[in-house]
Amino acid sequence: MARVSVKTDKDSSLVRLGAAIRARRQLLSMSQEALADHAGIDRSHMGKVERGERNITLLNIMRIAIALDCSASELLSQAGL
Amino acid sequence: MARVSVKTDKDSSLVRLGAAIRARRQLLSMSQEALADHAGIDRSHMGKVERGERNITLLNIMRIAIALDCSASELLSQAGL
Repeated sequence: MARVSVKTDKDSSLVRLGAAIRARRQLLSMSQEALADHAGIDRSHMGKVERGERNITLLNIMRIAIALDCSASELLSQAGL
Repeated sequence: MARVSVKTDKDSSLVRLGAAIRARRQLLSMSQEALADHAGIDRSHMGKVERGERNITLLNIMRIAIALDCSASELLSQAGL
């Protein structure tokens, strides 16, 4: 079988998930700092996640989803992933 | 706000996602080695992912979902995440 190619540039799934996280956070009128603190994620790392500059792990997706009062699959679905 | 606590032991979301990956792979009658090769993921790493022993990244979830002909959100939804 052919290898699956996944782009890691600015058009990638990372950017789309970051945008979905930001949209959900803004819907809840939550600051990026509050989300980072609530999820237990470093504030500067959270900024990079929202900009799609970090290859986020499942456990951090879970932490963010819980802090945003939604499921991880809902976040990914919102991102079109 | 209180910090979100995410368990990383054997009862965690990692185990549930690993089980969902395995179930989907077996539904397609695909070996773990074939999935690893198709997704471009090291075979020993894939075994650890299916057992929930690795904190998988979004890009690897994407690679596995593509190789399993489903979306990442469907995989997480199957895992109850």
